[in-house]
Amino acid sequence: MKHNFGAGPCILPKEVFERAAEAVLNFNGLSILEVSHRHKDFVAVMDEAIDLVKKTLNVPSGYSVCYLQGGATLGFTVVALNMMREKKRAGYINTGTWSSGAIKEAKKVGMEVDVFASSEDKKFTYIPKKYAIPDNLDYIHFTSNNTIYGTQFKSFPKTKLPLVSDMSSDIFSKEINVGEFDIIYAGAQKNLGPAGATLYIVKDSVLGKSSSTFMPTYLDLKQQIEKESMLNTPPVFSVYVAMLNLQNLIETGGVGAMQKKNEAKAKLLYDEIDRNELFQGCVEKEDRSDMNVTFLLKDDSRSQEFDVLWKNAGIVGLPGHRSVGGYRASMYNALPIESVKVLVDVMKEFERTY
Amino acid sequence: MKHNFGAGPCILPKEVFERAAEAVLNFNGLSILEVSHRHKDFVAVMDEAIDLVKKTLNVPSGYSVCYLQGGATLGFTVVALNMMREKKRAGYINTGTWSSGAIKEAKKVGMEVDVFASSEDKKFTYIPKKYAIPDNLDYIHFTSNNTIYGTQFKSFPKTKLPLVSDMSSDIFSKEINVGEFDIIYAGAQKNLGPAGATLYIVKDSVLGKSSSTFMPTYLDLKQQIEKESMLNTPPVFSVYVAMLNLQNLIETGGVGAMQKKNEAKAKLLYDEIDRNELFQGCVEKEDRSDMNVTFLLKDDSRSQEFDVLWKNAGIVGLPGHRSVGGYRASMYNALPIESVKVLVDVMKEFERTY
Repeated sequence: MKHNFGAGPCILPKEVFERAAEAVLNFNGLSILEVSHRHKDFVAVMDEAIDLVKKTLNVPSGYSVCYLQGGATLGFTVVALNMMREKKRAGYINTGTWSSGAIKEAKKVGMEVDVFASSEDKKFTYIPKKYAIPDNLDYIHFTSNNTIYGTQFKSFPKTKLPLVSDMSSDIFSKEINVGEFDIIYAGAQKNLGPAGATLYIVKDSVLGKSSSTFMPTYLDLKQQIEKESMLNTPPVFSVYVAMLNLQNLIETGGVGAMQKKNEAKAKLLYDEIDRNELFQGCVEKEDRSDMNVTFLLKDDSRSQEFDVLWKNAGIVGLPGHRSVGGYRASMYNALPIESVKVLVDVMKEFERTY
Repeated sequence: MKHNFGAGPCILPKEVFERAAEAVLNFNGLSILEVSHRHKDFVAVMDEAIDLVKKTLNVPSGYSVCYLQGGATLGFTVVALNMMREKKRAGYINTGTWSSGAIKEAKKVGMEVDVFASSEDKKFTYIPKKYAIPDNLDYIHFTSNNTIYGTQFKSFPKTKLPLVSDMSSDIFSKEINVGEFDIIYAGAQKNLGPAGATLYIVKDSVLGKSSSTFMPTYLDLKQQIEKESMLNTPPVFSVYVAMLNLQNLIETGGVGAMQKKNEAKAKLLYDEIDRNELFQGCVEKEDRSDMNVTFLLKDDSRSQEFDVLWKNAGIVGLPGHRSVGGYRASMYNALPIESVKVLVDVMKEFERTY
């Protein structure tokens, strides 16, 4: 039994893996890998994968859902292209690596970017809260959860401007009010499904209004949504597994129940980090992520010893991102609280033997 | 037992499905769906998936291979952006739906397109052969096999200009000389693997020379290749299954042996189409595709009767593309000749009972 604290692609429910494997061998008499995306059996899968997003997140009417490819990295370009208006100027909150990537790609398509809030001054260890949002902007963009640094927006920016969020690493982990947003986008490979699909939830009223002279068909959300995510061959298997996973999410109580579980897991681990004098958290307490818990050994010279302990306990994926070091316990939806208890026990054992 | 003549996503070898299903349950102790793309076990998969492309196609030195997402549809944009030079003018051969799509997307990124050869005059039922290639062009583009109409280039355009080909539907089906090309690109979902990965084989000397002012990082082949297809999270499962399928291709004799099998399958079916007076092929004989065999019933009023026969024989995926009608037998690498024999027997039986 392994305890997978990896940052993504990451753990999904065991039943989802089992049903996915079964479909690779037999999906209505064929493998899910060889079924045509135009076959009614797969069209039904795509429809359900879209409907379940709407259902689990309580998506209001006037919004559409589609699945593309390319991850949030291509999404950085997609949202800038689709939200570009006459001002060709957008406001970005910079909370780390992914926000920085989004800013870079917006500039690359000709957007002037106003970084009106940033936590770069303290190495992205907090979420900026005191800022004025300029009003001469086409839209505002932020990254809701920062996998690398371990910070998370606990409340979202209040603005009358169109609001766009990259929610790759915390969508489906808690209740959100989709109605506050114009576009939410997310790579699938955390709480949605396997890598290879990227989710977009889009307010219909923003479609077809881009001022960009450059708009490849694939990147045009209006055309993607009109074609119901079938503009070209979609990532069939990733969408299928996303559907299975959303079915599982509903069967296990939905996003509200999942939020409670995630909060309990986070509390368990953060409490131990704060109690155990050998460890320290990396970010401001009020901005700590429930998804990615970053922490350090106060005495780094003992890391080899700690590493042996957690590895022997069956834990995998605990090292911090190569750009920051330390430790990172990613605790996505499918990670059971039992795995967190195993990690906490290891931390206590390390304290005893130190 | 079903005989899957679907046009793609399509049949892959049974052993590949079995090994893929196994990896969904257990890939070195985790599911292949939850393993980090940065983990050495998956980095080894990506490396092998790249090396096997080079090995099977005898890719000469001076070329790189990478896997992106977005299918050939995003590829239309990628190749135009990366091959754009000072002239901002490219030559495209139009042999049908996919070529037309490639032309449209090249124009959308600011390319002037010279369609110097086209078979549109006869509804794309042949491959143009008599044409002069203008010389004031950045590159030449063609679609090597036309899934919808059922035509295929038997020899490639001879030119000193950079040559680009969308080989989505016949790559790995026969031997090719990669050295003739500057970029070959292909959606995976025919002879390579499941939908969700897109293969690029790129001459290194063309990288980093684009004159496009617009170049999102994701679409920049230079950066994708420098990052070894790990610029962001790759489509892990699709790449894994592509690796399995290429291993299987080598174990079963490689591309040369596969070409002989494919030619035998094509001959078997085309011979029956030509012999059996109830049927007729849709395209010029010399341009017939070995991958997608398009044919019609001479008396369309008997189609229901024919449809019952092939469905009862366990055949699926035989209807022609919704834009052209008739029948299409797609006979990709993994389709066994036994399935073609079943179809031919059905055609003979239809003749007897007619």
